[in-house]
Amino acid sequence: MSGNTLGTVFKVTTWGESHGSALGVVVDGTPAGLSLDASVVQKELDRRRPGQSSASTSRNEADVVEILSGVFEGKTTGMPIAMMIRNRDANSSAYDYLRNIPRPGHADLLYKEKYGIRDYRGGGRSSGRETVGRVAAGAIAKHLLSFYGITVFAHVIELGGIPASDLSFAEVLDNAEKTPVRCADLKAASKMMEAIEDARREGDSLGGIVEVIATGVPRGLGEPVFDKLDADISKALMSIGGVKGLEIGAGFASARMKGSQMNDSFIIKDEQIICPTNNAGGIIGGISTGLPIVCRVAVKPTPSISKIQKTVDMETMEPCEIQIHGRHDPTIPPRLVPVAEAMLSIVLADHMLRSGFINPVSIIRK
Amino acid sequence: MSGNTLGTVFKVTTWGESHGSALGVVVDGTPAGLSLDASVVQKELDRRRPGQSSASTSRNEADVVEILSGVFEGKTTGMPIAMMIRNRDANSSAYDYLRNIPRPGHADLLYKEKYGIRDYRGGGRSSGRETVGRVAAGAIAKHLLSFYGITVFAHVIELGGIPASDLSFAEVLDNAEKTPVRCADLKAASKMMEAIEDARREGDSLGGIVEVIATGVPRGLGEPVFDKLDADISKALMSIGGVKGLEIGAGFASARMKGSQMNDSFIIKDEQIICPTNNAGGIIGGISTGLPIVCRVAVKPTPSISKIQKTVDMETMEPCEIQIHGRHDPTIPPRLVPVAEAMLSIVLADHMLRSGFINPVSIIRK
Amino acid sequence: MSGNTLGTVFKVTTWGESHGSALGVVVDGTPAGLSLDASVVQKELDRRRPGQSSASTSRNEADVVEILSGVFEGKTTGMPIAMMIRNRDANSSAYDYLRNIPRPGHADLLYKEKYGIRDYRGGGRSSGRETVGRVAAGAIAKHLLSFYGITVFAHVIELGGIPASDLSFAEVLDNAEKTPVRCADLKAASKMMEAIEDARREGDSLGGIVEVIATGVPRGLGEPVFDKLDADISKALMSIGGVKGLEIGAGFASARMKGSQMNDSFIIKDEQIICPTNNAGGIIGGISTGLPIVCRVAVKPTPSISKIQKTVDMETMEPCEIQIHGRHDPTIPPRLVPVAEAMLSIVLADHMLRSGFINPVSIIRK
Amino acid sequence: MSGNTLGTVFKVTTWGESHGSALGVVVDGTPAGLSLDASVVQKELDRRRPGQSSASTSRNEADVVEILSGVFEGKTTGMPIAMMIRNRDANSSAYDYLRNIPRPGHADLLYKEKYGIRDYRGGGRSSGRETVGRVAAGAIAKHLLSFYGITVFAHVIELGGIPASDLSFAEVLDNAEKTPVRCADLKAASKMMEAIEDARREGDSLGGIVEVIATGVPRGLGEPVFDKLDADISKALMSIGGVKGLEIGAGFASARMKGSQMNDSFIIKDEQIICPTNNAGGIIGGISTGLPIVCRVAVKPTPSISKIQKTVDMETMEPCEIQIHGRHDPTIPPRLVPVAEAMLSIVLADHMLRSGFINPVSIIRK
Repeated sequence: MSGNTLGTVFKVTTWGESHGSALGVVVDGTPAGLSLDASVVQKELDRRRPGQSSASTSRNEADVVEILSGVFEGKTTGMPIAMMIRNRDANSSAYDYLRNIPRPGHADLLYKEKYGIRDYRGGGRSSGRETVGRVAAGAIAKHLLSFYGITVFAHVIELGGIPASDLSFAEVLDNAEKTPVRCADLKAASKMMEAIEDARREGDSLGGIVEVIATGVPRGLGEPVFDKLDADISKALMSIGGVKGLEIGAGFASARMKGSQMNDSFIIKDEQIICPTNNAGGIIGGISTGLPIVCRVAVKPTPSISKIQKTVDMETMEPCEIQIHGRHDPTIPPRLVPVAEAMLSIVLADHMLRSGFINPVSIIRK
Repeated sequence: MSGNTLGTVFKVTTWGESHGSALGVVVDGTPAGLSLDASVVQKELDRRRPGQSSASTSRNEADVVEILSGVFEGKTTGMPIAMMIRNRDANSSAYDYLRNIPRPGHADLLYKEKYGIRDYRGGGRSSGRETVGRVAAGAIAKHLLSFYGITVFAHVIELGGIPASDLSFAEVLDNAEKTPVRCADLKAASKMMEAIEDARREGDSLGGIVEVIATGVPRGLGEPVFDKLDADISKALMSIGGVKGLEIGAGFASARMKGSQMNDSFIIKDEQIICPTNNAGGIIGGISTGLPIVCRVAVKPTPSISKIQKTVDMETMEPCEIQIHGRHDPTIPPRLVPVAEAMLSIVLADHMLRSGFINPVSIIRK
Repeated sequence: MSGNTLGTVFKVTTWGESHGSALGVVVDGTPAGLSLDASVVQKELDRRRPGQSSASTSRNEADVVEILSGVFEGKTTGMPIAMMIRNRDANSSAYDYLRNIPRPGHADLLYKEKYGIRDYRGGGRSSGRETVGRVAAGAIAKHLLSFYGITVFAHVIELGGIPASDLSFAEVLDNAEKTPVRCADLKAASKMMEAIEDARREGDSLGGIVEVIATGVPRGLGEPVFDKLDADISKALMSIGGVKGLEIGAGFASARMKGSQMNDSFIIKDEQIICPTNNAGGIIGGISTGLPIVCRVAVKPTPSISKIQKTVDMETMEPCEIQIHGRHDPTIPPRLVPVAEAMLSIVLADHMLRSGFINPVSIIRK
Repeated sequence: MSGNTLGTVFKVTTWGESHGSALGVVVDGTPAGLSLDASVVQKELDRRRPGQSSASTSRNEADVVEILSGVFEGKTTGMPIAMMIRNRDANSSAYDYLRNIPRPGHADLLYKEKYGIRDYRGGGRSSGRETVGRVAAGAIAKHLLSFYGITVFAHVIELGGIPASDLSFAEVLDNAEKTPVRCADLKAASKMMEAIEDARREGDSLGGIVEVIATGVPRGLGEPVFDKLDADISKALMSIGGVKGLEIGAGFASARMKGSQMNDSFIIKDEQIICPTNNAGGIIGGISTGLPIVCRVAVKPTPSISKIQKTVDMETMEPCEIQIHGRHDPTIPPRLVPVAEAMLSIVLADHMLRSGFINPVSIIRK
């Protein structure tokens, strides 16, 4: 019970269902005095918004955010910031046939059995739409981090088995948002678009890999031994629906490396001790090294497909078949990009505050 | 600060340094009335203990646990269970030369910069020896879970690039502990042993992959949307030193699958709705499905190697070289096996209690 | 930072300012399957609502609650329940003169110094209006508790130095809500009303004492040694603005008693071991005894008074005088009654869930 | 379950039973670089130690603390500090007759019913001896606070109905520890000693009131709306066994005051805005004002008395009588003094860290 709050000092509580009257989030712990208006949040919501291209669902939601508290005269007050997004284009009747039919790959059956009752409309709370609150909270975190020179961005590096080639951060930042699949390698991106079209035609769906990066992170974030920075990042990223794997730095490849290959040596540069390589992905021993944090998440193919699947009627307990014709994304990774950025930003903001890098108190007098 | 407690209801707090006088753990939230004596914990500590074979460090620690509280007349009382393991074979002087020399791949520099002071003896708190408290706590969790028919076990499925073949759970349970590398595929195991010897001869180290499994887990564990079961498992496993990646079920392979391949269909068996396949790895939407939970963690090669590495003297700020001749494991995965089991057990015990499957109160009267 | 969430399993997060666009609360951890509609909450908000009599402020807020999530087809789903109350009758311009003038007895100066920025309109977040979220959350807790035979109620037992005589619980339940001061001793109540009128005429305000009671609480709630039931109740009640003291059972009188007077002896009744007396106030050693929980809170006089007070202009740093003519309550205790009930209900619901008395999972299958 | 950890950033976890092999505490979150040796802790334990005078139990425990972790070369390392105190003079057989006989005023019956099993030796975990861990943790908190100019002290202001006269803080600091009852009014102290002797002779016990004070607390501690400073202090103090009431500043007297009397006006002194009076007791709106924090706790008479009391045999369910001849304190307040100081210190250290007044990171480099 009550697993809808994340964070220790920068504390995020989300609520809302896919077809309820609204979704939202309360962000508690934002330092006072930060310039903030709705456009900061709206910009990120717009990136998450469905209906933007054939790579995503046709549900059309403006997703206009309303900031309800915690901001006064354009600045945060240190009080909880509540934000709400009304649902408008919810077409609940389209889900009536799902009342008793659990969709394979979805949590329908589990919610029904765990809670005894389930808001089956559009997946209810287990819908990808739930991430709207995460993105709103992440927008504030990202905005806060930007004042400390931290940039968080994500991009698709593999989709439907098509890998993107390695690019510099600058190229990624320049190009990733130019394509509907959010892949900075434009050639790979167009192949990915084709693969999506093929999958859609077959009534099937594709998985992929998203890379999430944070640059400008100071050395010293993370609280061993359990609240290590990589541990908290893992939790945050794995809590996104559809993520089945995660790696940091060399990740799974490190399992095949030798110590002499994996270890990042120390050198002196500009009178600082640094590592010229970053196999660690910016985190060693649970603490940020000052180099970019580089994570990759494996995203499974969208479980909603229009191909015929075997399932069971929970009421009659008879086997049956299902073809899902609701409005759903043929592939998740492109839309997961802003969500992954949000989750990494939330964890970093929390650890910046926990570590004392951001002093939560604007004015301290003895 | 203060990141040494894990869990919401089954709460684990570890303490201690590699060369301090002792290490230990406080386990708060164990239900009352559970039969428990030190042998339950000792058995797991013995599995974690160093010096057992050439696959591990030659440091020789008996690691005898003392249960200091929370048990009365052979049963838990519901009060916090404190356990302590004295350090005996600590050879601190062997580490004197590390006072100012950070070892590549280790957190030495980061601890020094983050805290300003560092117990450099044997890695202090960032040593693998810290896991002794985790294993002691995990032993209680595992013992508790066993009463509910849940079995947690782990084994090495890849080491130094050598993969083990797929085996049934029964074969894994039968064979994994027979080999020093804890790999149930005995042929692969002997190749892994050779690879370890080669690496040792070169003064180098190896990485690998550990699979952790829980069977008998009831359907319904996990608290969406942030405290999803897979999210909490990820945090727990990633908090183990040396882990750089993690996947559940099909994991990274799911990124290359289509929805029609990945989705586990529903059928009826014995009047229950079940999935005959388990691509999900036992968790969908953050909730356990009732099928085995299957995770894999990527473990980097031991950073301590006797090959010459480049580093820097933190005091003189001069570049220098280092050869590490302390007693260290040539590869981590075999010794990570009981630690991974401990972490998964702790998370499952916590979620069993959170979900109401284990009633924390022995006797309830209105 | 981030101190706006209360509870471990039944988790309440409030947000909103007196003159912001709305106030609200997210309640996470309500078990699924509980019948709930807005009227359950509205009823309690109506009791808290201002403008009901001369004993309270003339600000007129309908305080209509909107339930935004977590309820489906009239039942809770186990998902977070978000509730919002729009502000309507906020007259912010009436507070313009307070921008730089801290009101004695209020937190104005402290918010300004702590956060550097302050929503001065109507006290912002430090306004008594903040309690609207508490009462909404408390309504759900109270409703949940009612299914377990637990009744929570409060009444004014002293106001402006006028004590009420001791009455039975039945008399309190019958009469307390009949009078604007929520005192069940009707004679004392009318004297209290007179005292309020006198104070109002003088431009002054009155304090008083509120008693909060819970009956039907099962034996066994409370988690020693820190999360004792009385400790958590104390925190919850002391977090209400204006409360300066708190006692349970014999309370401060127990300091003057001897052990032989204070101790509640045990006898057998109906084959159960019970105490015929209740000096303990329903809690011993931090655990509920099964007898009624009886707490009393001391409430200071409303700090907003129209009498001339000395203060300082924070901008010019010049001394000045202030007369507060905003719409404020001449005395707090009558309006604190539903708030105190809410806080006690929230703590009890949380401990019911923590202790296993309420199983959070509706349907558990292995 | 699991209620043995207190604090958000400065986190204290206690463990141990009265007659177990040891008691102890883990303190997580102490900033690195603080000079600390065992004498700092021992000094406070010696003040708490039993057997010091006729005002306390005759159990003779040296209570020697061992610091097991978190300190290196005389300084804290930022790692958890584990401390242990061995039990030596435990006379468990003296408690055999209590196995089935619950003592009135004690939690014996409740532990038995809540947990189904109970370490009845000397009260087990519910013994006053449990506070040894609190005092050890509090010693570190107090030591940390002292570097910031904060002094925490407590004294007995009423015992057995005998009040002490009001004294200045200086007089209290000078005299309180001179008398076995820890009352700074030496005349009242000797009357209190007589009252204790009388009570002892009658086989009875006395209650009293302890005042706890913190001076030098900076303005701005406390995190509204739930983690207000006074709310957290209340929880911490009420979690001490035997405390039945608590007030801050004018406390219960404020209920009888008018706003014009209660409000502390603002003036300018030394170019700072301050209040010349302190009816608030150093906290308004949940935030520290910069003036001394003044709390008073009501302590019930020791429940263990040698007078005959009525109770019940839990096994036979027959009524019986009890005379308690174990070694117990005739009155609790004098021994509660160091415990109350410890709890207030722990809360203040936590809030200092939460508020950013103490930066947890010793050295921050970007």
